[in-house]
Amino acid sequence: MSPDLLQQLYQLLGPKGVVTEGIEQRTTDGWGNNDCLASVILRPTTTQQVSDIMRLCSAEGQKVVTQGGCTNMTHACDTSRDELVISMERMTVIESVDNSNRTMTVQSGVPLQHIQERAESEGLFFALDLGARGSATIGGNIATNAGGNQVIRYGMAREQVLGLEVVLADGRILSSMNQMLKNNAGYDLKHLFIGSEGTLGIVTRAVLRLRSRLPVATTALVATDQFSKMPRLLNHMESALGGKLGAFETLWQSYYRIAYGGEQQTSPPLPVDYPFYILLESTGIDAQQDREQFLAALETAMEQELICDAVLAESQHQQQGLWAVRDNIPSLQPYQPIILFDISLPLSEMENYLEEMEANIREIDSSLFIATLGHLGDGNLHVAVQLGNDQPERRKAVELAVYGPLQQRGGSISGEHGIGLEKKPYLHLCRSEVEIQLMEQLKKLLDPQCLLNCGKVIE
Amino acid sequence: MSPDLLQQLYQLLGPKGVVTEGIEQRTTDGWGNNDCLASVILRPTTTQQVSDIMRLCSAEGQKVVTQGGCTNMTHACDTSRDELVISMERMTVIESVDNSNRTMTVQSGVPLQHIQERAESEGLFFALDLGARGSATIGGNIATNAGGNQVIRYGMAREQVLGLEVVLADGRILSSMNQMLKNNAGYDLKHLFIGSEGTLGIVTRAVLRLRSRLPVATTALVATDQFSKMPRLLNHMESALGGKLGAFETLWQSYYRIAYGGEQQTSPPLPVDYPFYILLESTGIDAQQDREQFLAALETAMEQELICDAVLAESQHQQQGLWAVRDNIPSLQPYQPIILFDISLPLSEMENYLEEMEANIREIDSSLFIATLGHLGDGNLHVAVQLGNDQPERRKAVELAVYGPLQQRGGSISGEHGIGLEKKPYLHLCRSEVEIQLMEQLKKLLDPQCLLNCGKVIE
Repeated sequence: MSPDLLQQLYQLLGPKGVVTEGIEQRTTDGWGNNDCLASVILRPTTTQQVSDIMRLCSAEGQKVVTQGGCTNMTHACDTSRDELVISMERMTVIESVDNSNRTMTVQSGVPLQHIQERAESEGLFFALDLGARGSATIGGNIATNAGGNQVIRYGMAREQVLGLEVVLADGRILSSMNQMLKNNAGYDLKHLFIGSEGTLGIVTRAVLRLRSRLPVATTALVATDQFSKMPRLLNHMESALGGKLGAFETLWQSYYRIAYGGEQQTSPPLPVDYPFYILLESTGIDAQQDREQFLAALETAMEQELICDAVLAESQHQQQGLWAVRDNIPSLQPYQPIILFDISLPLSEMENYLEEMEANIREIDSSLFIATLGHLGDGNLHVAVQLGNDQPERRKAVELAVYGPLQQRGGSISGEHGIGLEKKPYLHLCRSEVEIQLMEQLKKLLDPQCLLNCGKVIE
Repeated sequence: MSPDLLQQLYQLLGPKGVVTEGIEQRTTDGWGNNDCLASVILRPTTTQQVSDIMRLCSAEGQKVVTQGGCTNMTHACDTSRDELVISMERMTVIESVDNSNRTMTVQSGVPLQHIQERAESEGLFFALDLGARGSATIGGNIATNAGGNQVIRYGMAREQVLGLEVVLADGRILSSMNQMLKNNAGYDLKHLFIGSEGTLGIVTRAVLRLRSRLPVATTALVATDQFSKMPRLLNHMESALGGKLGAFETLWQSYYRIAYGGEQQTSPPLPVDYPFYILLESTGIDAQQDREQFLAALETAMEQELICDAVLAESQHQQQGLWAVRDNIPSLQPYQPIILFDISLPLSEMENYLEEMEANIREIDSSLFIATLGHLGDGNLHVAVQLGNDQPERRKAVELAVYGPLQQRGGSISGEHGIGLEKKPYLHLCRSEVEIQLMEQLKKLLDPQCLLNCGKVIE
């Protein structure tokens, strides 16, 4: 990086806006074990400053990596020594909440949890939630089209965004801060940037959709003995709850056995010897009616032998206990090194896929531990595979074992985490040549010098 | 068009695939008063044929207009003598319904109503509905990102599309027939084509999302005396119905007075002297519970003086009667020539906007009739303005009177109908220079010869 450019950036952002020390102590991913290698971190406070940064950088061909909360799982925020970081850590203003339109206007560095809490304080609800809510920023959620636990009812991050402001590689500000549910005036440009992992533009502000708060959650853990009953149970619960199903999270025995010991649990909420467990949650407004409806739906499921055991949470404490089992990803820690995959595929292909994938892993090393859980209702599974050793060959063999069988089943190598650097070599397994060509054409159109998060997602 | 090209197209498509006679009897819009001027209509039956057509046309620089059901309101399917029409009228196959994944795979020429009926016959539900359902095709719905009456709960056409197959201007087939709710493997290319009105690619097939059918609809017409009470009523009903609100359609007295006489109505369901009427509908699964909940919500609204009158439909016949008032657009016919606008704007700006807009119209001619109705819950209003005469100057004056006051209020010239030819001159009123630049860049990237619906939406 040229001393001239650094000088100009100091002038632009002031001493608080340019960090050159202590950078290596920062991490760039959600595992916390990936050091930031960049030599300079810029901390703008406005869209205009981001625009000015990109005008300077594009004039000099300086590459940048935009960072939000750095909770990604795919090396999407990795940096090299010759890259600049643009950190959104000072763009944390919630600019306004409009109770009549039910929108919130924010800068992109606001942590997800702040947005959730602000919506709640206004008697409303922001329909995106995920484990890293405390540190993940809304800009990162948008840039990766984050998923999480409520997709089945409310959709992904994309569906929560009404308007977007983006700085392009050449510094132009694309301001599409639409506030309406409907706007068909020309191409809807925001979708180019949502989910493109910071490679096509830098998200600086957004208009978010808020909804009615549904204060009553009814939660149960159920067990079943066959995979094929889970999709049937999903459809049964969707129908029987009349659209109130808010979560349908599945836990394979492999995961349940290690995860139930998580926070506050002393004994498992259900015995550990069922093949499959499902965490069900409905959300509504009438505690008694919702409970009766939920119990009736479970009763029918029991009669139809879709489930063989069930426990309904009787208190908020018990609800949290059930969710703690689902969320106990740290219980995988003893099996490190592991890869936590994030595949998605049609429900009708899932059982067959898992058999082939597990056989592939056993061929590599039959002692490797595999734990499966995920958002079955969205076709999205997290499979944690123990590597045994962290040699690149082993890693590659395991990746191929997991990704290979997706191809002929119409599956995807990423349901929600995105591609980053980690999955880039495998993108061709789930995207056609023409799809990849078009992605490359878009990248070249919007970032011809490859300045924005260069080398992530696609070449 | 060169005789050589025509000869090649005959060879490709056979005699049934090429129509050269009776074309002027076809109409190209939803008003039915716009003749098709093209000299040749092509009727492919497969994506491959569409691809072959575009390879031939791009080699010769031949411009094409893709047509579905031609129910658009914006001159989006207009043709000139030197353009070819690619009609989807023979691409009408519903290829499969997957009950487990809850998806339907279709060719793009299938009429919307066939998709709705097929979903229903499988005990499922396709969450897009609009007046032209019988002739509008799913390909047209996707190409225009159609809205309709259920957006408030389920979103627009965009939200119902999981996968898409598109033929590009150069004949390449972009097949992104994703079946999952979640797929973050690289850029989500389908969003480029949804809502781009056939200017970036030709939609040939799609994977649609199906949902649980909610068989119980509870419907009421209510009246209120102040505009400002409608947004409050919307938020009240959203909360009080726990997310079950399916429609919130508003009718101004100006529209209600002429529309109540529609099909099957002899006397108005509510007196005609209230300033505002709202058609409310909830959808669920339990007739009695839903009704009690709905009545309780109305009672609270009455106590809070949000509404001053209400009638609940007691039968399906009565429900249809209430919807017939809403849908009685033909009652505007005596006021022809009219323009039916399709604006959207933030709820908090709407009342003030309408005042300014009406004052503008009165300045042109104080005798012109204005009728307002629309999807207030989505920020989207239809305003019908009588022109008095059909001189281009009058038309332009009225358009400016309606579109002008949108600009400073963050409104849009099109909530759902799109831009086509009709609204193109006004796009700059609701899109910034950078937005329009980027739209033009995308058009140039994907269709450098301007072969696809050239001159619609943008230059």
